[in-house]
Amino acid sequence: MRLAIGKDELRQRQNRFLQKLQEAGADCAVLFGVTDIFYLTGFHFHPTERPMCFVVDPSQTTRLFVPALEHEHAEEFACVDAVHSYPEYPGLKHPLEQLKEVLEQAGFSGKAAGYDADGYGSSMGYRGPRLSEITPAKEWKSVAGIVEEMRMVKSPAEIELIQESCRWGNLAHRLLQKYTKAGVGEIEITSRATTEATMAMIETLGPDYKPHGNPANAFYRGQVGPHSAFPHAVTQNMVLKKGDTLVSQAAADVWGYKSELERTMFVAEVSREQEKYFHLMCQAQEIAFAHIKPGKPFSSVDEAVTAFMQDNGIQHLTRHHTGHNIGLLGHEAPFFDLGDHTVMQPGMVVTVEPGLYVKGVGGFRHSDTVLITEDGMERLTYYPRDLDSLICS
Amino acid sequence: MRLAIGKDELRQRQNRFLQKLQEAGADCAVLFGVTDIFYLTGFHFHPTERPMCFVVDPSQTTRLFVPALEHEHAEEFACVDAVHSYPEYPGLKHPLEQLKEVLEQAGFSGKAAGYDADGYGSSMGYRGPRLSEITPAKEWKSVAGIVEEMRMVKSPAEIELIQESCRWGNLAHRLLQKYTKAGVGEIEITSRATTEATMAMIETLGPDYKPHGNPANAFYRGQVGPHSAFPHAVTQNMVLKKGDTLVSQAAADVWGYKSELERTMFVAEVSREQEKYFHLMCQAQEIAFAHIKPGKPFSSVDEAVTAFMQDNGIQHLTRHHTGHNIGLLGHEAPFFDLGDHTVMQPGMVVTVEPGLYVKGVGGFRHSDTVLITEDGMERLTYYPRDLDSLICS
Repeated sequence: MRLAIGKDELRQRQNRFLQKLQEAGADCAVLFGVTDIFYLTGFHFHPTERPMCFVVDPSQTTRLFVPALEHEHAEEFACVDAVHSYPEYPGLKHPLEQLKEVLEQAGFSGKAAGYDADGYGSSMGYRGPRLSEITPAKEWKSVAGIVEEMRMVKSPAEIELIQESCRWGNLAHRLLQKYTKAGVGEIEITSRATTEATMAMIETLGPDYKPHGNPANAFYRGQVGPHSAFPHAVTQNMVLKKGDTLVSQAAADVWGYKSELERTMFVAEVSREQEKYFHLMCQAQEIAFAHIKPGKPFSSVDEAVTAFMQDNGIQHLTRHHTGHNIGLLGHEAPFFDLGDHTVMQPGMVVTVEPGLYVKGVGGFRHSDTVLITEDGMERLTYYPRDLDSLICS
Repeated sequence: MRLAIGKDELRQRQNRFLQKLQEAGADCAVLFGVTDIFYLTGFHFHPTERPMCFVVDPSQTTRLFVPALEHEHAEEFACVDAVHSYPEYPGLKHPLEQLKEVLEQAGFSGKAAGYDADGYGSSMGYRGPRLSEITPAKEWKSVAGIVEEMRMVKSPAEIELIQESCRWGNLAHRLLQKYTKAGVGEIEITSRATTEATMAMIETLGPDYKPHGNPANAFYRGQVGPHSAFPHAVTQNMVLKKGDTLVSQAAADVWGYKSELERTMFVAEVSREQEKYFHLMCQAQEIAFAHIKPGKPFSSVDEAVTAFMQDNGIQHLTRHHTGHNIGLLGHEAPFFDLGDHTVMQPGMVVTVEPGLYVKGVGGFRHSDTVLITEDGMERLTYYPRDLDSLICS
């Protein structure tokens, strides 16, 4: 059973990045993006006010530049050639002044260098100069998007980790449904389901399982009753009532890899109106599944769903596009969106989740995680989708 | 019991922001910062690839610009005069093109405008133009930091929410300690403690409690045994052993407000070496407490701790500064850092957490959340700090 990405695959990623960097005309680079750093080095850390970055030299040496409190942690876990650190932020000398020295030593002077952002950014009280103001490179160009694009198509190992995530999201969702009853609060249901699924997960997978995120979990996130008509509600500590429409969410991080499982459910009973929108939503999802084909643009899936919504006079009840790529982040590009013409490729993992939102009645959305294959798609989430299975008794 | 910030206080914040904006020479502004938007409007949302911002007109009308999926949600919960939305990102027309029209209608043309960032930023697959490229203002200037500075000194209502957070963090920590035993895994201990503390919290506070974050929780976050020598380790699914040094972490979000409680603990027994570093760390924390005085610079506290570390020959075992401001984010400026000369003021809430990290032995750090008062400080976290109380049997 696979529970991590190996060092070989991390090194392959770094080599591909180096190649793409050269194709972009850069001799060397600095990346600040947390997810991209994890993808390239396997180093998971808590970003704070303290700047951190991944550095590739003109000689292709890979480095991490971190605060002192991450030095030994990075040496233990990061797949890089060297780790450099500075005492602290703000410190007596600004960390980016110290980064300048590292880049000088690394041979950036006079070179064409790439960055994903012109300096470090954090909402946690960080202030600092632009990278281009302080560094010795001859020129700086943006290479933002190179790693993001590499992350779009998953390797067999990545797909295995996402499948493992789906398994435990499924268990968490089963328990969520089991504990869903009128008169019980969303936080209580979440807590029981999440804890039990997490315990089963760690007992089953053992100490080799590293979440790099959260173990199995399942939520309603405030999507309860009329509030479920807010597609991105937040947990409101609501108590469920008979007849409520619910939109759930379940997942599990496996070495940082995510999946998405969402279901429209009902507390004890379902009205004719709820049933109508439920079935329309299911049909819309089927249409999306049928249009997932490698070689076609992402927009074609959203176009098919939009046409269905228009034909049924329910376009005014939609609030968002049909889905998105998923992997190390919950949402990644490309999107099943009218404006996204990226071409679908085998190995991409996406969510399929057209939704209908009816004021006073609720939200209607299933989300499934799907692998794009050579000739269509394969559902990785396997929770029941039919109405009878989703009425919580 | 206070469980939220009222609309009056939100309006006062907006008025203060408008005043500071004028002092900075801006007639109007656009803010993208998620925490600052919550602080000013009370609107809690999940940031994604879809741009969102808070807008203040030259006429002082306040607006939120959101994707369609947040429109009704914002109308229900945000304290603003108007909500505008666009269909979707990327969409057939880029959201920032639609923001341009909103800003034109709002009277930005020919005005001096402020922003906290020159465009929206997200790691979730967003791409877009700079604000200054597309908008009608005469000039743009950065007003980043205005709201962050407003957030530094807490109001009486904010302090009450942080105190409420401390109460439930304390319970979660008590349960964490209760379930801590050799042979048990960190995730199991966390799950039990977090679930029980969360249940007690929601039963006690009732439906008026809105977390806007996470209810009561307690973790080791991989800070177990020799791994606790990594000051910012991540959860590694470790099993505790007799004699392990542990560094814990407990908190609870109350309407988005946070606190921080961390303790150095030991599994069943403590060696003479562990005891030595434990006491040195406690002394360092006492020294920090004693130097917290309004009117003095933040740096003075870190200087006193640094002098103590040097006098005892343990400076080489430190990896970070003494603490940071805390509120809506876990880390906020200013910092108890040699390089931060911001003046301490009554009403600031800070963490005090000097640490020692000894390879092979572990990490030694208590963190307490402290209110700066008119004549010194008051500890808001009240968990025992002494060695006898922190040996888990």
